[in-house]
Amino acid sequence: MSGTSQLQTVLDHIDADFDNSLERLFALLRIKSISADPAFAADCKVAADHLAADIATLKFAAEVRPTAGHPAIVAKSNGNTGSRPHVLFYGHYDVQPVDPLDLWTRPPFEPVVTTHADGRKIIVARGAEDDKGQLMTFVEACRAWMSVAGSLPLDVTILIEGEEEVGSKNFVPFLEQNKKDLAADFALVCDTGMWDPNTPAITTSLRGLIYEEVVIKAANRDLHSGIFGGGAQNPIRVLTRILGGLHDDNGRIALPGFYDGVKELPADIRAQWAKLDLTPDRFLKPIGLSLPAGEKDRLLIEQVLSRPACDINGIVGGYTGEGSKTVIPAQASAKVSFRLVEGQEPDKVRAAFRAFVKQRVPADCSVEFLDHAGAPAIALDWKMKPLAAAKQALTDEWNKETLLIGCGASIPIVADFKTTLGLDTVLVGFGLEDDNIHSPNEKYDLKSFHKGIRSWARILAALAEAPR
Amino acid sequence: MSGTSQLQTVLDHIDADFDNSLERLFALLRIKSISADPAFAADCKVAADHLAADIATLKFAAEVRPTAGHPAIVAKSNGNTGSRPHVLFYGHYDVQPVDPLDLWTRPPFEPVVTTHADGRKIIVARGAEDDKGQLMTFVEACRAWMSVAGSLPLDVTILIEGEEEVGSKNFVPFLEQNKKDLAADFALVCDTGMWDPNTPAITTSLRGLIYEEVVIKAANRDLHSGIFGGGAQNPIRVLTRILGGLHDDNGRIALPGFYDGVKELPADIRAQWAKLDLTPDRFLKPIGLSLPAGEKDRLLIEQVLSRPACDINGIVGGYTGEGSKTVIPAQASAKVSFRLVEGQEPDKVRAAFRAFVKQRVPADCSVEFLDHAGAPAIALDWKMKPLAAAKQALTDEWNKETLLIGCGASIPIVADFKTTLGLDTVLVGFGLEDDNIHSPNEKYDLKSFHKGIRSWARILAALAEAPR
Repeated sequence: MSGTSQLQTVLDHIDADFDNSLERLFALLRIKSISADPAFAADCKVAADHLAADIATLKFAAEVRPTAGHPAIVAKSNGNTGSRPHVLFYGHYDVQPVDPLDLWTRPPFEPVVTTHADGRKIIVARGAEDDKGQLMTFVEACRAWMSVAGSLPLDVTILIEGEEEVGSKNFVPFLEQNKKDLAADFALVCDTGMWDPNTPAITTSLRGLIYEEVVIKAANRDLHSGIFGGGAQNPIRVLTRILGGLHDDNGRIALPGFYDGVKELPADIRAQWAKLDLTPDRFLKPIGLSLPAGEKDRLLIEQVLSRPACDINGIVGGYTGEGSKTVIPAQASAKVSFRLVEGQEPDKVRAAFRAFVKQRVPADCSVEFLDHAGAPAIALDWKMKPLAAAKQALTDEWNKETLLIGCGASIPIVADFKTTLGLDTVLVGFGLEDDNIHSPNEKYDLKSFHKGIRSWARILAALAEAPR
Repeated sequence: MSGTSQLQTVLDHIDADFDNSLERLFALLRIKSISADPAFAADCKVAADHLAADIATLKFAAEVRPTAGHPAIVAKSNGNTGSRPHVLFYGHYDVQPVDPLDLWTRPPFEPVVTTHADGRKIIVARGAEDDKGQLMTFVEACRAWMSVAGSLPLDVTILIEGEEEVGSKNFVPFLEQNKKDLAADFALVCDTGMWDPNTPAITTSLRGLIYEEVVIKAANRDLHSGIFGGGAQNPIRVLTRILGGLHDDNGRIALPGFYDGVKELPADIRAQWAKLDLTPDRFLKPIGLSLPAGEKDRLLIEQVLSRPACDINGIVGGYTGEGSKTVIPAQASAKVSFRLVEGQEPDKVRAAFRAFVKQRVPADCSVEFLDHAGAPAIALDWKMKPLAAAKQALTDEWNKETLLIGCGASIPIVADFKTTLGLDTVLVGFGLEDDNIHSPNEKYDLKSFHKGIRSWARILAALAEAPR
């Protein structure tokens, strides 16, 4: 029985069953699976168990498997025979912390459908998009195929992890250990976005990431700034002086050798990108900004998609409560991350950053580094066969040409799939720029969720018939 | 009846009653009178009521009087006639916040006497020195005089406030309103230190202070650093770049005009100071440092006593919890203070700081300032007559020549007494450098408390007979 012949029935079923799809998503969104905070470790386990049980109802052999951190789920579809194309679908059930909580208009783990100011229906909750909403588009597409056809049009393994938001440190060993069970022809990842609310996109390049924490220690205790001020070194002064020097006056990153290996965009791609509407007016204005903050001689679209970047993601030291305290603290710390592009070596950038800091720490202060994450940039193979099939399926669903774009964010799993499992990855997602992922009031457009499910139903059919 | 003739009896009484003096101090130390945190406002009121009641037992007319903030205490001794010298004694019952609480070896509001590693007996609690222990040396000296002689050797008004640690913003209006009741010949303030554990000191110059909070706002919400990193401005980047430029490579403060009006130390004073043992080895080594952090061409003793300084007292922005979060925060803030010396105008320095910051904030970011405190530096009148009497009394008690020194910290009340009440101030205190004031494990040497009480008993007698 051909997948394509049944596709319309499947799509109709998705529309008819959509309220139930939404309720199943809500059940997942209610679980506080914050991977960064040890206080929520039990909730992560609950989320894994819940998802595995749900996927098992689709006649998948679904197992929650331990890792050195939060558990992962491996689920193999019933009809897997090895004679059909076999895809490995990846998502993550863990979510970002919710602070600052007071900026949420509703409790982050009590999902609702509300109406956006511009009339769009949106699902609001932590994880509504990243990645619970996105991964459920695939699960619900599988459910529709199972309901209508009793089987999937191709072999599917679903792999869902619980530590994506904390750098997936325990996931590569897990992939190695489960290599046999995860064999497939290629991977599908649903953790990226559309170009705009009406234009589907497949992401073909991803920036890499290194994420460092730096701790500067000065005196052996907090000091009174009246008694010691001017004479005793202040670790916040040391830290701000170092971090304040990470960018030069032209917005370039000042680490020696940082741009080594970074390639220029091909002229034709740059010309094409220059025509796209990722402009300050469209991209920065909605977030209250107007001036591109990156390298002065680059287009904004380059700054966020194809050029490396450095951000200080957090900083803390001394007295941060209400009012004043005349203290020189004993230590200060910051979290600093670098977005990398093809050609940059994460280890080299990390070493350059540490050397840059160490050279600037006074001899009587000390510095410690914590390595929170590291992944190289990815440039996908444009000639990958499934890409064309997925692209066409998306274009059919959205009735608009699918764009092949770069992504500024890192999805380290894509590199891990290549190096550990030998798999190329097709990145399809339905997120939008205003989804507030990692921020208060995260949302997912109801249309993204609905047409996302329909998109995957089409893609599954298209991939079943695509050349392998 | 002469004060001096009864002095030995008073000193003996102090020794005999010392355990009770200590218990009365402990009762005050148990009250959590943290002025900076609104959660402890009721405790501040309890502290004021407690102290007023205690002082009333010394036949003072003691009243708790409201201010626009935490209340103050005004207490006039029973025998005040106006025919004797009249001193206004000042202290403060409020204390600093206790964070980081986990660095305290004991609960900060459960005072104990313990033994320091070097054998000294010490009182450990928040406020043990600053300023509860210090102010109680005076109260207990008055108590001894009352017990032995039934009256004090001179007229005394005790004035105790509850907002010193938050900049005494409501205290100047209070002084204006209570001007008549606070008339005196000069003021005594017990909020300073000894030169070392065996050498008494009177502080004759004080650095001033301005304390600013600066808040940088960029995007209208937290952003994902993968999606926006490189293109959207990061307020921590802006803040660290600005704060990192506050000092130049020679440790000088880079605000234009900052050193205008700053006088050089007289050559003879500098020569005398150069011989004192405020050296890196003695002053910085105990706190785990070795390199003076101030202007490179200055002695360490100048850096902390007679030169202006700038410290970042707190900084916070973005994700500061465990692990990592790839966020570009919407805002970042810092608390920045400047220690000022004679000749610098606080308003001018504040304006220079704000201009320095504003010039460096990108056009699409905003900056807000909060003014937490401001006070000019003070240089006391060396020819003030009571100074010689107090100096001799201290020398008699400690059996060592009393030093006249500068103090790096600000005691804004000294300027306020001059401008509102027309009073000069004699600053006598028994704090030590290792008292950990404003830090975890604050302590006061038992010897400071005991001999502090004896010192004030002597000073009261000496001032009663000194030329007015």
